[in-house]
Amino acid sequence: MANPNQSNLVKGTPAQIRGEIRSGKFYSQTSGMAPGYAQGNLVILPRVWAQDFLQFCLANPKPCPLLAVSEVGNPALPGAGADIDIRSDVPSYRVFVQGELVDEVTDIRELWEDSFVSFLIGCSFSFEWALMNAGIGVRHIELGCNVPMFKTNIACASAGAFQGQYVVSMRPMKPADAIRAIEITAKMPQVHGSPVHFGDPAAIGISDISRPDYGDAVPVGDGEVPVFWACGVTPQVALANAKPPIAITHSPGYMLITDIPDGDLLSGRFQFSLPFLR
Amino acid sequence: MANPNQSNLVKGTPAQIRGEIRSGKFYSQTSGMAPGYAQGNLVILPRVWAQDFLQFCLANPKPCPLLAVSEVGNPALPGAGADIDIRSDVPSYRVFVQGELVDEVTDIRELWEDSFVSFLIGCSFSFEWALMNAGIGVRHIELGCNVPMFKTNIACASAGAFQGQYVVSMRPMKPADAIRAIEITAKMPQVHGSPVHFGDPAAIGISDISRPDYGDAVPVGDGEVPVFWACGVTPQVALANAKPPIAITHSPGYMLITDIPDGDLLSGRFQFSLPFLR
Repeated sequence: MANPNQSNLVKGTPAQIRGEIRSGKFYSQTSGMAPGYAQGNLVILPRVWAQDFLQFCLANPKPCPLLAVSEVGNPALPGAGADIDIRSDVPSYRVFVQGELVDEVTDIRELWEDSFVSFLIGCSFSFEWALMNAGIGVRHIELGCNVPMFKTNIACASAGAFQGQYVVSMRPMKPADAIRAIEITAKMPQVHGSPVHFGDPAAIGISDISRPDYGDAVPVGDGEVPVFWACGVTPQVALANAKPPIAITHSPGYMLITDIPDGDLLSGRFQFSLPFLR
Repeated sequence: MANPNQSNLVKGTPAQIRGEIRSGKFYSQTSGMAPGYAQGNLVILPRVWAQDFLQFCLANPKPCPLLAVSEVGNPALPGAGADIDIRSDVPSYRVFVQGELVDEVTDIRELWEDSFVSFLIGCSFSFEWALMNAGIGVRHIELGCNVPMFKTNIACASAGAFQGQYVVSMRPMKPADAIRAIEITAKMPQVHGSPVHFGDPAAIGISDISRPDYGDAVPVGDGEVPVFWACGVTPQVALANAKPPIAITHSPGYMLITDIPDGDLLSGRFQFSLPFLR
């Protein structure tokens, strides 16, 4: 279903690309699209579960940094873009019942409930943009593969039924680049912020750095150390542990494209605001 | 010459302590005095050498971060404190001729020349205060010894006759603390800023981490990495290499106590301003 006009769409504004996705004309992974604008991980939950999930995100800001939260039952997400309809503006959705994947769809208008709350969680694309802008190589992008991700023994703070351990992504760097990467990502708390660990993988429960639990392995060169950031897969693990009656997420790689400039996330101009979840 | 009133003086304002030092009533190392206020490394040079030294500091901000520079021939240092007389307000001075130490004195009024320019360079006391405030242990302070310092193979940018390699100080930490220490010190560029290296000492030309070139050795524990910050001894090495006809510095440990709150260095409130050196 790849669209022959994708190369044009990549250069469109976020609103234009969302419009194409909404109309069903376009279906693709969103990596590299609308460069310079943040993309987000989506989690939709019924209100009674949303309260605990909100607590979970606020208590675990590194793996679950909130970019936007919707009002109850409202498919708009003004914190992420003026015209968003969260029921149609993501290219592919996954539907979970009791924590089990039951369907993958391109539109959730028929599934929408008045109790639904949408959570948009920041994604490492924005900080990888900032690292590359600073001249720091990002290995998996250089190699054209997915970032390696690992389960760890770092416990999340629990909230209701939501609990689990951090999943982390790994990027190998020389120490001097790692120091600069820590400085840069520390300024971007809405997209995972600074790393949670560097160096010895065993110290956070990773037994084999060459065998990621998700994504692709990348080599760690001589004089490099693996640097580990909290990863947006963490809330998916917590969701699987909580087993809510229904939950909807984006499909991996098929993100919501927002109107939030990556530069606003780096400069601190972006402000997160939380609606009342009544 | 230790003063029986030192315990009272430690609690005085910076101006009060400088007044006691100026009047000759007080002579001591300044570590721990006027807590909460920055202390500085002093370098005094004739104007013709000061131009190159200024370039050297500006080109090497990590080892030589400038807190204040005087006007030519003016013993005041308003950027560091309202009432400073740099000829008398440091407890002990070292006098160098052609890069060789020739004298150590408590007052330099008789040596003062109309061409002299004073440079005040930030000191790690301020960032160690910030680390401890954040609950991060600083090993050499815990052990009650001097920080270990090492010569490296990291070249300074040269300026005229001023050149040499970085000297670094080392503090061992667990990676999670090191990440936070990098975040904190990155906000304090006037007191050496973020580290220049962590991990493998050999990568920056240090052959034996247990044998510092200056200061005292401290142990690096299991699960810890050595973290290396650029050190204020670096400009002393550059001075020894440049061999100016005369140079005056503070004696090691006998610093200028400034009116600059450590908190201003952390928050970015402190502003460095440079006078014309005509």
